[in-house]
Amino acid sequence: MTTGLTLKNLLNIEITGSGTAFPERGRWITNEDIHQMIFGDNWAEKMAEKKLRPDYYETELGLKKRFWTHTPGTTISHNELTSADLMIEAAENAIKDSGVPKNEIDFTIAVTITSPKYSTSMGPYISGKLGLMAPALEMKTGCASNIFSISLAAQLLQNGARNVLIACGETTTKILRMNSTMAYAGGDAGVAIVLSRSNANNKGIVAAYLNTNGSYSDYMGVKGLMPPNQQELDNDNYVLSYVEGTEEFLQQAWNTTPGILYDASGIRPDEIDCLITHQVHKKRTIAAAKAADVPMEKTIDIVGEIANCGSTGVLLALDNARKTNRLSKNQTAMLVAGGGGISWGGMIIKT
Amino acid sequence: MTTGLTLKNLLNIEITGSGTAFPERGRWITNEDIHQMIFGDNWAEKMAEKKLRPDYYETELGLKKRFWTHTPGTTISHNELTSADLMIEAAENAIKDSGVPKNEIDFTIAVTITSPKYSTSMGPYISGKLGLMAPALEMKTGCASNIFSISLAAQLLQNGARNVLIACGETTTKILRMNSTMAYAGGDAGVAIVLSRSNANNKGIVAAYLNTNGSYSDYMGVKGLMPPNQQELDNDNYVLSYVEGTEEFLQQAWNTTPGILYDASGIRPDEIDCLITHQVHKKRTIAAAKAADVPMEKTIDIVGEIANCGSTGVLLALDNARKTNRLSKNQTAMLVAGGGGISWGGMIIKT
Repeated sequence: MTTGLTLKNLLNIEITGSGTAFPERGRWITNEDIHQMIFGDNWAEKMAEKKLRPDYYETELGLKKRFWTHTPGTTISHNELTSADLMIEAAENAIKDSGVPKNEIDFTIAVTITSPKYSTSMGPYISGKLGLMAPALEMKTGCASNIFSISLAAQLLQNGARNVLIACGETTTKILRMNSTMAYAGGDAGVAIVLSRSNANNKGIVAAYLNTNGSYSDYMGVKGLMPPNQQELDNDNYVLSYVEGTEEFLQQAWNTTPGILYDASGIRPDEIDCLITHQVHKKRTIAAAKAADVPMEKTIDIVGEIANCGSTGVLLALDNARKTNRLSKNQTAMLVAGGGGISWGGMIIKT
Repeated sequence: MTTGLTLKNLLNIEITGSGTAFPERGRWITNEDIHQMIFGDNWAEKMAEKKLRPDYYETELGLKKRFWTHTPGTTISHNELTSADLMIEAAENAIKDSGVPKNEIDFTIAVTITSPKYSTSMGPYISGKLGLMAPALEMKTGCASNIFSISLAAQLLQNGARNVLIACGETTTKILRMNSTMAYAGGDAGVAIVLSRSNANNKGIVAAYLNTNGSYSDYMGVKGLMPPNQQELDNDNYVLSYVEGTEEFLQQAWNTTPGILYDASGIRPDEIDCLITHQVHKKRTIAAAKAADVPMEKTIDIVGEIANCGSTGVLLALDNARKTNRLSKNQTAMLVAGGGGISWGGMIIKT
């Protein structure tokens, strides 16, 4: 039996704007930069001693560079960019791209797994800074957050909202350890989209599929008990830790999603113009294309340039698809995402 | 011009279950207990010296007791109840009350402003512990969170979900200072409801109103920059702080909400069987009854027994209304909530 929730025919909806944020105050970091940070100037020798292949991250995982607001393992500073800063800049760019006046944005969904605040909702926080006056909330469910947030936004548009802003920011570098398994894998980013009500009843979400298996919730995450306290800080527990054991389930979750979406929508693989997935590493993107039966040339693969940026991944790929004209009007796209939690899902949209 | 989003006719929906959590591992604390904790055994003398009235909290604010999982100002311990523990116990109670089999719950919304985890979404976390296998997310927008979460749940029910669980837990005591302005005001609680699809097209949300003015986002909240770091801990910045200046706007937000709901629904004040508000203090409840033009005997006023329990307040009042038969089948209720953020709103529901 297939579990999870399938939503169908959330139509009369268009993506009218998208934008990213990689501000100049951050830095673009190559694999060599990280080799140097971990192993020092003679990293080539040191890595050889430890039998680590310097080319591994590019050759095996397709990772070349990533954007950092912070150097993992160092003290967090008020001078550094926060996830909120990234959301706000991306939102400004997306709103500008959409041409929608700010007073016609009727809802804001802020998304992050690396909020700069405890307790304060990033929805009100960023909407205040953006000068919006409309309901706003913060939500998260790992790397699939934006499959969920787009599904919620679509329903709000169907019930009267004219335009919904989804603004997403991550500073994963602030919870990564500076070591050879973690430092290369993550990056920081801001991305936002504006979804708008449309007169066209052939545009929108044809089918969406959402699911969560929370029994894996303890396998990946920041262990330290909150609110912040000295004991957890002393034990270095406010960094991302990972326990092996989710990979098989996660792979299966990604692999079964396209079939569920094809069944729910009646759309065939050869009708997909663009496959837009959460960006983890190259192997995951290749596996996703295979599972969706979509050729790699129709698949957005930008992970080499950004690494895994938490919940922003699928929207970064969507923005890239729009900006490179690989997703334009009157096309059909599939979105797929899944990650720590485990929440996963996808959707087939018509533009 | 009225800003904000109004949703209408989210019908064919029933509240089928509700439940709370105040487990035995926590403690019920009277005003006198707090006098003693702050001022010592000779608190009467000490308070008189400082011209503090021991009866102020009950006489002026209507606060008599509250549930604590933690003593404000002390070290947080792994032995204490967390917001997740409270959500899970409340959810079990609500699910049992609803009679809905767990495998027919198609979505879980976890709500908290005091999560026990950074980065990890409480949606997957609690749904895993509850043994659910359905999509789950965490959301927040201050004390109005559950006006928003019920609105989202209603839309999911209209688009195919059979039952939606909203589970809410707060441990505000872990971010309160132990002083005479803060320690009396807050409490801890878990509460959950199950919303279900219904064949009755006269049951559900007749009208809902949601809004946010994020320009007040910095006035109330935990200041310290996240993720947790030593500097903010040393500066005692991971506790709730409050800057004067929101009260007038917040009052106006609460006061204008009923009129917007009456206009949107065509329902008159005398048709309201039960007024269910977020529980702040007695003055706020009285003001809300006046603004809604509903007599106090139809208003749920339990703040004296629980104090302000963050985002759980409106659902605690709703559960109380159901359990005391002040809200039963075929009635009309108004919900109103608003707080730090500032997010606010309300809804008129038919049961």
